[in-house]
Amino acid sequence: MKPMGTIPADYVARDGELLIGGRTVDDLIGEAGDTPLFVYDRAIMAARVARLRAALPPDVAIHYAMKANPHPGVVAAFAGMVGGIDVASAGEMRVALASGMAADDISFAGPGKRDRELEAAIAAGVTINLESLAEGVRALGIGARLGVRPRLAVRVNPNFEIRGSGMRMGGGAKPFGIDEDQVVPLCRDMIAAGAEWRGFHIFAGSQALDADAIIEAQAATVALAGRLADAVGATPPLVNLGGGLGIPYFPGELPLDVERIGAALAEAIAARAPSIAGSGFAVELGRWLVGEAGVYLTRIVDRKESHGELFLVTDGGLHHQLAASGNFGTVVRRNYPVAVATRFGQAADETASVVGCLCTPLDRLADKVALPRAEVGDVIAVFMAGAYGASASPQAFLGHPPALEMIV
Amino acid sequence: MKPMGTIPADYVARDGELLIGGRTVDDLIGEAGDTPLFVYDRAIMAARVARLRAALPPDVAIHYAMKANPHPGVVAAFAGMVGGIDVASAGEMRVALASGMAADDISFAGPGKRDRELEAAIAAGVTINLESLAEGVRALGIGARLGVRPRLAVRVNPNFEIRGSGMRMGGGAKPFGIDEDQVVPLCRDMIAAGAEWRGFHIFAGSQALDADAIIEAQAATVALAGRLADAVGATPPLVNLGGGLGIPYFPGELPLDVERIGAALAEAIAARAPSIAGSGFAVELGRWLVGEAGVYLTRIVDRKESHGELFLVTDGGLHHQLAASGNFGTVVRRNYPVAVATRFGQAADETASVVGCLCTPLDRLADKVALPRAEVGDVIAVFMAGAYGASASPQAFLGHPPALEMIV
Repeated sequence: MKPMGTIPADYVARDGELLIGGRTVDDLIGEAGDTPLFVYDRAIMAARVARLRAALPPDVAIHYAMKANPHPGVVAAFAGMVGGIDVASAGEMRVALASGMAADDISFAGPGKRDRELEAAIAAGVTINLESLAEGVRALGIGARLGVRPRLAVRVNPNFEIRGSGMRMGGGAKPFGIDEDQVVPLCRDMIAAGAEWRGFHIFAGSQALDADAIIEAQAATVALAGRLADAVGATPPLVNLGGGLGIPYFPGELPLDVERIGAALAEAIAARAPSIAGSGFAVELGRWLVGEAGVYLTRIVDRKESHGELFLVTDGGLHHQLAASGNFGTVVRRNYPVAVATRFGQAADETASVVGCLCTPLDRLADKVALPRAEVGDVIAVFMAGAYGASASPQAFLGHPPALEMIV
Repeated sequence: MKPMGTIPADYVARDGELLIGGRTVDDLIGEAGDTPLFVYDRAIMAARVARLRAALPPDVAIHYAMKANPHPGVVAAFAGMVGGIDVASAGEMRVALASGMAADDISFAGPGKRDRELEAAIAAGVTINLESLAEGVRALGIGARLGVRPRLAVRVNPNFEIRGSGMRMGGGAKPFGIDEDQVVPLCRDMIAAGAEWRGFHIFAGSQALDADAIIEAQAATVALAGRLADAVGATPPLVNLGGGLGIPYFPGELPLDVERIGAALAEAIAARAPSIAGSGFAVELGRWLVGEAGVYLTRIVDRKESHGELFLVTDGGLHHQLAASGNFGTVVRRNYPVAVATRFGQAADETASVVGCLCTPLDRLADKVALPRAEVGDVIAVFMAGAYGASASPQAFLGHPPALEMIV
C-alpha cells in the first residue's frame, strides 16, 4: 500500500456519495451525460478568493492566471471575483475578453508571442508583458502601424527565485522575461517611444509550499521593483508580484499559511521605496485559486487481478489528467488524493491501483492505494483536478473522446 | 553544450534547406499555410515496411499499431502497405475502417473498453483483443444481443518481458492482458460459447533497442503460444507477437538490426510446436514504422540572451511535441535530434537552447545544442516526430492553436 495526498476538507458525503457543489456525483454525471467528467465548484473558488482577499493588504489586487484552468465558465466566475486576468496566448485572451473582464485589466505574458498575437492584444487594449527586447521593438512597430498606443509592461527575470519552488521561473538564464540589467533601458525606450508603460511583471517561481520562501521572494520582488523604478525615473502603475503559491498534492505536503504570507507582504509594501509609493500591486495566481475546486470523475469499467494485484480499470486516464499520472514535470510518481466517489467516506478494505483505459503502463491514476471495495460501475474521484487538468493533458491520445467539463 | 540524437540519414539538404519528401521546408510550410507543422514522409514509411518485409519470414504479417500516429493520411498510407491495423479505441477504429483496411484485418486492444466500444467493434466485425475475463463475458453478451458472432482474441500478459524495454508491457502484475494461467479456460469458454476465436495477442514490451532481448522475447512468445494452444486444444488462427522494436532518439542509441531479428524469428517459427503449425503470425509495430518519417517544423519568433545563454524561442512547443520536451514517460531529459531546417547541413557555430512559446520551464525542445547561427524567421526541425507527437501532446495547453499536419 502506498500513501496518497489529502482530500481537501471541502468535500463531504451524503448517504455515502461524494457531494460537489452540494450535489451528488450521480446527479452531476446525469446532467453532464457521461463520464469522464471534470466538475469545478464555484463556491470553493469564491472561498479561496475571499480567504486570500482577507489575508492580503487592501492595495494588492488578485489576478487570475487562466493558464491553470481556461474553461470559459471558470474564467467567467473569476472575472466577477478578481481584479484582473493574466493570459498566455491570443486564444486565452479571447476567452478572457468574453468573460466580461475589462481589457484594461487583462495582461498577456509568454515568450514567443507572434506578430498576430501582439496585434490582437494591442488592438484590444490588453497589456502586453514583454518577454524580450525584440518583442518590445515589434510591439512598438505594430502599435504605430495600427495607430494604437500599446500598453506595455516588462516581465523581469529576477536574479533570485522562490527557494524550493516546484518550477523555477526566475534566477539565472531563463527564456522568460528580461534580465534585470536590461530592464531599465527598455522601460525608458518604451516611455520615450510613446507607449503606455504599465509597470513590471516579476515572477519568481510556482507551486511553492514553503511560506518563508514565498515571503522572502515577495520582499525581494518589492525591493527589486523599487530599485528598477528608481533607475527608470518613473512610477510603475502596477507591480505584478507573480504567484508561486502552491497547493498540497502529495502525502506529507501541507497547505500554505496565506495569512502569514499576506501579513509579511503588507510589511514589505509598507516599507517600499519612494519610487513605487504610488504604484498598485497585484498577485497572479492560478493553481492556488482553482486547483482544489476541481474533481475528475471517472467510472470503473473493469475490476481485474493480475499476479495477485488488483486493478480498477476506468474510462478515464492520463489523456485527461496527465499530471495525476505523474507524467508532467514530476520526477518521482506520487499519488494524488483519490476516492471511490460512490462510496465516499467508507473505510478502506483493499489495496487497488486505479488505471486508465489507455494502452500504456504510464496510464496510472493511483498506485496501490487503500480504498473501500469498488465494483464495475462505481465512480472514482481524483481530487486536486481543478488546475492543469483537462487543458494540460493529451486529450486526443489514442482516439478517446475528450473529458466533459462542468461548473457548479 | 549537450549532445543530441542522430538525425536519420533519410534527411538531406538542397541549397541549404532541409528536404522532406523531396520538397523544401519553405515549400511545405507554404502549402500548409503556417507553422508549427508536422510533415510525414510516405516514402520513408514505405521504405521501413519494405525493409521489415524483406527481413521477416513470409508467414509473418506486419500490422500497423495506429496509436503511434492516427493521422488519417498516415493510416491510409499504411493500409495499402501492411496486413492489418491495430487500434486502441473506437475512435481509432473508425479511422482504420475509413482507411480502406478490411474489418477482418483490424484488431482492437486496450483495457477499459466500454460496452459501446465493444458493440461498435462487434457490429463492424473487428477482432477484439480481450484484456480481462469480465470483458470476455461482456463481449459474448453483446454478440448475443446483436445477433453477431464476435471475433475474439485473447491478450496474454506473459510472465516475461523484453529485457531493457522502454516500457514494460508484460511480466508481473499488469493492467493489460490476461495472466497466462487464466488464458486457457477463457479460450475454451469463448470457443464453447460460439465466438469466433482469433488467437492470441502477446505483447512483451516496447521501444527496445537490444536486438538480443527482442529475439529472446519473440522466441519465448512463440513457445508460449505453442503451449497455450496445446492446452486449449485448438489452433489459434493468428498469433500476434506484439511489437517492441525501438528507434534511436537519443545520443549513443543505435538502430536495431531488424535483419538479424527477422532471421531469428524465422528460426523460432520453423521450430514451433505442432499446436501452432497451422497458425499465422503477425508483428504489430507503430513507432518503428512511422517515428523517423515525421518532422516537426517550428519557426523562430525570438532570439534572446539571458545571463549569457542563448534561447531560440519558437512558435511551437511541448503542446505539440511533449515527448521531445522530456515530459512523457522519461526520467532524465535528453535531446531529440534537431536542426535549423533553413540552414540544414551548415556547421554549428553557437550553442543554443530551443524553447517553445509556453509559459513554463518544461517547454524546452532542445537543451544547449550546437547549431548554426539562426535568426528570427528561421525554421527549427525536430526529428523523430512521426510517432507519439501531435496526438500524444496536450494541444489545448495555454490556448495556442493545434499543430498543422500533412503527409507528403
